[in-house]
Amino acid sequence: MALGKGRLEAFSDGVIAIIITIMVLEMKAPHGDTLQDLRPLIPTFLSYLLSFAYVGVYWNNHHHTMQAVRSVNGGILWANLHLLFWMSLIPFITAWMGENHFARWPVFCYGVILAMNGLAYRILALALIKHHGENSLVAKAFGNDFKGKISIGLYPVAIALTFVNPTFSMVVYVIVAAMWLIPDRRFERLLGGDGEGE
Amino acid sequence: MALGKGRLEAFSDGVIAIIITIMVLEMKAPHGDTLQDLRPLIPTFLSYLLSFAYVGVYWNNHHHTMQAVRSVNGGILWANLHLLFWMSLIPFITAWMGENHFARWPVFCYGVILAMNGLAYRILALALIKHHGENSLVAKAFGNDFKGKISIGLYPVAIALTFVNPTFSMVVYVIVAAMWLIPDRRFERLLGGDGEGE
Amino acid sequence: MALGKGRLEAFSDGVIAIIITIMVLEMKAPHGDTLQDLRPLIPTFLSYLLSFAYVGVYWNNHHHTMQAVRSVNGGILWANLHLLFWMSLIPFITAWMGENHFARWPVFCYGVILAMNGLAYRILALALIKHHGENSLVAKAFGNDFKGKISIGLYPVAIALTFVNPTFSMVVYVIVAAMWLIPDRRFERLLGGDGEGE
Amino acid sequence: MALGKGRLEAFSDGVIAIIITIMVLEMKAPHGDTLQDLRPLIPTFLSYLLSFAYVGVYWNNHHHTMQAVRSVNGGILWANLHLLFWMSLIPFITAWMGENHFARWPVFCYGVILAMNGLAYRILALALIKHHGENSLVAKAFGNDFKGKISIGLYPVAIALTFVNPTFSMVVYVIVAAMWLIPDRRFERLLGGDGEGE
Repeated sequence: MALGKGRLEAFSDGVIAIIITIMVLEMKAPHGDTLQDLRPLIPTFLSYLLSFAYVGVYWNNHHHTMQAVRSVNGGILWANLHLLFWMSLIPFITAWMGENHFARWPVFCYGVILAMNGLAYRILALALIKHHGENSLVAKAFGNDFKGKISIGLYPVAIALTFVNPTFSMVVYVIVAAMWLIPDRRFERLLGGDGEGE
Repeated sequence: MALGKGRLEAFSDGVIAIIITIMVLEMKAPHGDTLQDLRPLIPTFLSYLLSFAYVGVYWNNHHHTMQAVRSVNGGILWANLHLLFWMSLIPFITAWMGENHFARWPVFCYGVILAMNGLAYRILALALIKHHGENSLVAKAFGNDFKGKISIGLYPVAIALTFVNPTFSMVVYVIVAAMWLIPDRRFERLLGGDGEGE
Repeated sequence: MALGKGRLEAFSDGVIAIIITIMVLEMKAPHGDTLQDLRPLIPTFLSYLLSFAYVGVYWNNHHHTMQAVRSVNGGILWANLHLLFWMSLIPFITAWMGENHFARWPVFCYGVILAMNGLAYRILALALIKHHGENSLVAKAFGNDFKGKISIGLYPVAIALTFVNPTFSMVVYVIVAAMWLIPDRRFERLLGGDGEGE
Repeated sequence: MALGKGRLEAFSDGVIAIIITIMVLEMKAPHGDTLQDLRPLIPTFLSYLLSFAYVGVYWNNHHHTMQAVRSVNGGILWANLHLLFWMSLIPFITAWMGENHFARWPVFCYGVILAMNGLAYRILALALIKHHGENSLVAKAFGNDFKGKISIGLYPVAIALTFVNPTFSMVVYVIVAAMWLIPDRRFERLLGGDGEGE
């Protein structure tokens, strides 16, 4: 009840920083020294780029959400570790997808992992709202979690689309990531009290 | 005597964040692109899941304990590094156990490493209590360290059981982890002063 | 608008710390045990040394810049992640350059990655200046970003020189790094108000 | 002149946390599942243990030193990065020494890297003393840096001893590490004002 949020933020920052960085280790330096030698790395690079965006979005949202948080409890610590667990699987699934040139099952599993991350974030949000109360800043900020709901709705579509054509699924993943990259002023507005935008 | 606890927390957060994340590097992306190609990774995944839970429990407990701590001294810094040393062996032993499908000796050694971690945590607790005094918040919080005592008692049982059947040992490891996942309100109650639960 | 800068600093510190450290993993311990066995590692070591200096310069500049920053917004978080993305490619390109003994195309691409980092830092600076206003401390500090402008001007030169001789390009990279290693008192002077130097 | 020490501490914590943890990655899980399969890892484990102690000592000393520090400047940031550079070579040299069962040249180079670390720490200390003044807390604390002087004196002895017998060198390395593990109350006494010990 009375636990500070500082270390939850610091630990999450550490884990997310490692996750976002170790993905690049999958891009092994090729033995040849020409531009053509880089070509086989293109799928790995593209999958890294997409996952970097997703992990960046999660860190960004985590940062915004925690700004509205006053304190945490044991349940929230575990909800956060649960989210970090699913995030920790992103480098693995990204590597598998990149190495297999966006084949059906890797793309399918990539969507499953993204969906589990979305779900885990939702669970963390619910734990935070329960702890702070329905009228809290956190609750209001999540009130109309429009992007979150669309995302969780789009992942099953993308996963199902792998049976039609995995490329369609990739398009959906890119759309979801792009949607999050568009600035979201919900939390900033609530916290800063300004309504006229940046 | 007058050392702040901030950097001990930050350094521990960093090391634990790395430990919990590098374990996933053992799950190498398979070369095939079907669901069947993931099957050989199942033991590695399960051992990762269990160790993630254990490292998560240690971070969680570390967080709770340090909340009650006012300052640290040289001895505490070393007791903490001693704990981090044993934690740093968890990814190694996890990989060995996963790769060998929970065979006797890996499971045996996994238990030894868990027991050494439990012991190292106990030593850290004693160093903290000695530094803060018998009537301190830290001392009271550890007063009836029920879960800690049960854990240290169960590890030898699990280790011995490897000679009967390593699966029995795994069941004990899961039980110990599950026991810690059940919320522990000792520290929260002491620090927050509320007695009616969440 | 009202976001604190603390976590942006903490997350950047984490990612940069990992980037600067994982580069050394490319230096694999040789199997032989004589000094001669270390010789093949010399190009890898030299490229590590150079990239360590560059990443160190970026961290140093990031530290100085953020000292003048009061708060951040969503756009700044993304400009920062964009910078971290290009920095995360430094270990890869460093490994490729070292393994290929500073051959043309790796040296060419190294320059491109450095230039993209320089550009990304410039974008971050513009986002910070836009957020704080033209008369802010940040804006003044970047007012005559002499070194930044020279660097961005020298990278294309170095990249073009790879078609003459990659060694010339390396000389330019070393000069740019050395230029940054010379103390820069811009921010310190502005923040500390002292004009007589150290 | 007016730079806070917070980020220098945070970045150093991050880099040192990664250095101390990635060393364990050298201990690859063996393919066999018996205790005998662990035997070939013993030299790697022992070299890890020694280097863990050394890196732990550096973090510990860094922590104590920075407690007495009020602010930092550009030169100090670079002196600190210089120290981190030499520390970053410890995992490499540790792996080389462990894999070659403490053969002459790896043991020789291990001593060189340790000596460079000792020197880099000394340079950092001088930069800190210059910045804070001869009568500062930092200067007094380093006044009779007994252990530091002995260490820097013993490294050349250990390095020379590799030509007699590398085992003698290892004994010296262990003695130096052990010397640092004995509590050092210099800084604590100065900062806490207590003279009667713990």
